[in-house]
Amino acid sequence: MISKSRARLVRRLTVRRMREREGLALAEGPRVVLEALKSPLQVRWVLAGAEHAGSGIGRRVLDACSQRGVEVQVAPDREVRGLASTERPQPVIACVAAPPPVPRPLDRGRYLMATGVQIPGNLGTLIRSAWGFGLDGVVIGAGTVDPWNHKVVRASAGGVFHLPMTSGPDPVDPLEGVNLLCADAAGAVPGGPGRGVPRDWVLALGNETGGLPARLLRRARAIAVPMAAGVDSLNVAVAGSILMYLLTRGGE
Amino acid sequence: MISKSRARLVRRLTVRRMREREGLALAEGPRVVLEALKSPLQVRWVLAGAEHAGSGIGRRVLDACSQRGVEVQVAPDREVRGLASTERPQPVIACVAAPPPVPRPLDRGRYLMATGVQIPGNLGTLIRSAWGFGLDGVVIGAGTVDPWNHKVVRASAGGVFHLPMTSGPDPVDPLEGVNLLCADAAGAVPGGPGRGVPRDWVLALGNETGGLPARLLRRARAIAVPMAAGVDSLNVAVAGSILMYLLTRGGE
Repeated sequence: MISKSRARLVRRLTVRRMREREGLALAEGPRVVLEALKSPLQVRWVLAGAEHAGSGIGRRVLDACSQRGVEVQVAPDREVRGLASTERPQPVIACVAAPPPVPRPLDRGRYLMATGVQIPGNLGTLIRSAWGFGLDGVVIGAGTVDPWNHKVVRASAGGVFHLPMTSGPDPVDPLEGVNLLCADAAGAVPGGPGRGVPRDWVLALGNETGGLPARLLRRARAIAVPMAAGVDSLNVAVAGSILMYLLTRGGE
Repeated sequence: MISKSRARLVRRLTVRRMREREGLALAEGPRVVLEALKSPLQVRWVLAGAEHAGSGIGRRVLDACSQRGVEVQVAPDREVRGLASTERPQPVIACVAAPPPVPRPLDRGRYLMATGVQIPGNLGTLIRSAWGFGLDGVVIGAGTVDPWNHKVVRASAGGVFHLPMTSGPDPVDPLEGVNLLCADAAGAVPGGPGRGVPRDWVLALGNETGGLPARLLRRARAIAVPMAAGVDSLNVAVAGSILMYLLTRGGE
């Protein structure tokens, strides 16, 4: 049986303000929980459904907890499911230390910067791709959804636990010394490192309908994914992912 | 004021069975409605919010309707919004003839085949990318969400109106003469037309967690998007879109 105080904490952590106050976020489902357990972040405890814990992937979660010395509470599957935010949840929930995004220098390394990305699935998918292509971090710019939102965590497939989340650049001297890139149909197709692409860069992506704010657009070099005639644009997570792929691949 | 029978029809069309019975689907929001009006499909009528119709994009919708001879009914914004399925709707809804996917030969042309893609946003995003990269159609295989589902239509940005939707291949002689490709980490990175990629192909994508059924995997040539060590996979819509990009781009 899950204690009332723990159930209350899980419910509180669905609210951004509470996540920020507690410095905690939730991971749901065995795959995402396993990524949290593999990541550098501290996992406070795991709630596991008793029946699910007997399945192959359920046992992998318990093994990973015991290796990392993480407390596991086993409860009836339906109790754990009842606390989950996702639609058809598998009954495993982890409580993870969720450091707030902090400013970091962006002049060395390769970063994705999301400014005004509002759909959780888009931000999560972008974080998953940034992790998949070995970027150094993700900058959470103004107007972007909270990276610790449960839909973002889920869509990131746990990538959010592996990459440093950085807060938006200092507004006074925003991106001095940074190779700022942005997606724009008028830009050139990036050719990969050593083919006109600098080693270090920040790829800025904007709002799903409004795009990037003008002050960033003015500073950025435009790069493009070529498309068929008559087609306006790709989904922001798709365009961003293709560009991350092109910018990070080796020469062919 | 929207007639009761029309309001009832809009509500019925949120249900797959009803869409199939009527051969109709809904487009919501001015951008998606504009794509329906530009597409080869018949648009039966458009409901437009009176206030919204005075905005720049609202006027573009009315102009496109008058050019195509489509009946427009103007009603208070809140009445049109009240009929919309999307979360923060703009008050424009179109009723569009939605032909059911039918079998087509797949041995000539370039097709995306979605088998077991269950998340509407993923299928819609894939259709948007297939449209963006000039594919010839999308095959809706077994277990895939209805392409006329409102979330698919929305995520496709209207691409679903521009590309032929094809039903799954004949189960007896499924894909004879077809260059069937699938995403798999063990495959080679596709180099684009003339670089080991045939002119005609079908790119098969499977379920978000389970992947492709074995009978298709056995038949398919594996192609891959290279990723960082320790990362399992990308989002299916991202992986599919990157592969469509690589398969359709010209030599560099």
